[in-house]
Amino acid sequence: MAALAGKADQPVTQAMRYAMRGGKRLRGFLVLEGGRMLGVDPACTVSAAAAIEALHAYSLVHDDLPCMDDDDLRRGQPTVHVKWDEATAVLAGDALQTLAFELLCDPAIGSAEVRMALVDGLARASGIDGMVLGQALDIAAETAGHPLTLKEITTLQAGKTGALIGFAAEAGAVIAGADRGPLRAYAAALGLAFQIADDILDVTGDAAKTGKAVGKDADAGKATFVSLLGLEGARARAVALVDEACAALSPYGPGADLLKQAARFTIARES
Amino acid sequence: MAALAGKADQPVTQAMRYAMRGGKRLRGFLVLEGGRMLGVDPACTVSAAAAIEALHAYSLVHDDLPCMDDDDLRRGQPTVHVKWDEATAVLAGDALQTLAFELLCDPAIGSAEVRMALVDGLARASGIDGMVLGQALDIAAETAGHPLTLKEITTLQAGKTGALIGFAAEAGAVIAGADRGPLRAYAAALGLAFQIADDILDVTGDAAKTGKAVGKDADAGKATFVSLLGLEGARARAVALVDEACAALSPYGPGADLLKQAARFTIARES
Repeated sequence: MAALAGKADQPVTQAMRYAMRGGKRLRGFLVLEGGRMLGVDPACTVSAAAAIEALHAYSLVHDDLPCMDDDDLRRGQPTVHVKWDEATAVLAGDALQTLAFELLCDPAIGSAEVRMALVDGLARASGIDGMVLGQALDIAAETAGHPLTLKEITTLQAGKTGALIGFAAEAGAVIAGADRGPLRAYAAALGLAFQIADDILDVTGDAAKTGKAVGKDADAGKATFVSLLGLEGARARAVALVDEACAALSPYGPGADLLKQAARFTIARES
Repeated sequence: MAALAGKADQPVTQAMRYAMRGGKRLRGFLVLEGGRMLGVDPACTVSAAAAIEALHAYSLVHDDLPCMDDDDLRRGQPTVHVKWDEATAVLAGDALQTLAFELLCDPAIGSAEVRMALVDGLARASGIDGMVLGQALDIAAETAGHPLTLKEITTLQAGKTGALIGFAAEAGAVIAGADRGPLRAYAAALGLAFQIADDILDVTGDAAKTGKAVGKDADAGKATFVSLLGLEGARARAVALVDEACAALSPYGPGADLLKQAARFTIARES
């Protein structure tokens, strides 16, 4: 009977798997490629890459809920609460967050010290000091009574998307036991460029390519990097940030080429 | 302005603090007392105790949501989504789960190996193999078309409440580097007794003392330990389980007295 069906047959398990499909996998790529650049075997980084993707997937499932952003479309497919129901979406998101921390327990990642550093880093990046705070600020902005300033939006985005991208980029250095500084500087610029590109796509993008609704921010009268800087101003700022991100990786020479290409892709993408 | 107010002023932070107030703190107590029995300094167990309470608080905030159990009252106070709103409740629960894992990073707990074992144990107990699976089975039971059998309810509860109580009881042994067997056996019996007592309270309890709605299961026609065993049968089963829990701790002699008292309290409580 349904109630005693195994874990694999539960809607929540199916929803978890569904939520992990598709997407750019930028965060997982940053973990793998940051590690590769520093000489780490992918067998040591793959579980950390999966962890960050699970954490990101949880945040999308919960952000899409009717009580949050109320989105019906994600990665070109119905969102989890549309395909199943809200209870399943809450539980699937919850379990994806747990799964992220469970994946960081994989001994293949490295010593217990290294894995603890990742647990600590992921928790700080995604919790009330990072991603959740950014999301809370985003909700507060809707009732603030006036559009945000550039400084306020930058703070909001540093939490909402920047913290997790920063963790992803640094994870390879944590696993390698290398200096985190260059990858941290790369990620700080990349994260902001990524968000500016998102705002540009919300104005210029095609829902068939982005796989999610577009024009929502403008319709809602929300301040964005585009509304504050203008379309060309936002593009110029994104380009400058990508240059900054690439410059931060100069110590690694051509070994950093793929990460530099990724930074350029971030603002050239159509989805 | 509101959107840029500090973390401390955000509704989500206030909601997290609110959700952590009150309650029996049974799970935190089990961590502290299991450790104390095995000679561990409370300074080494307190962060793990806080972690399990944060994890438990997250589960209550999300379980109370309208799309889940839709409860207005918890620990004698309005639930988080009633006092704030659903978005704040989703975010506060999310951040409380993250906080649980962050608390396990406290170096005072012990070596990185010990802390990793706790992260792994908490993730397994609370995720899709434990608490979330139990909650999913509970939701599935409502649409199963027939009341659950005793075996099915026991399986459901082993996930929904048993896994986390089991982790809490074992955590002291993990931190002490001691044999987990006796505390694991104690917790397995205790967890089931606890749930039977909850079902009894749902029938006989006073909402003013339990701090939450009573009679919900009977009203919903849900199978419970009371509907399946009868009130006296359920009481007898709970007493037998508490005896079993106490017997599991016999290797520790009088040092286990407080844990034995806690087991007896579990079925004698009025809230």
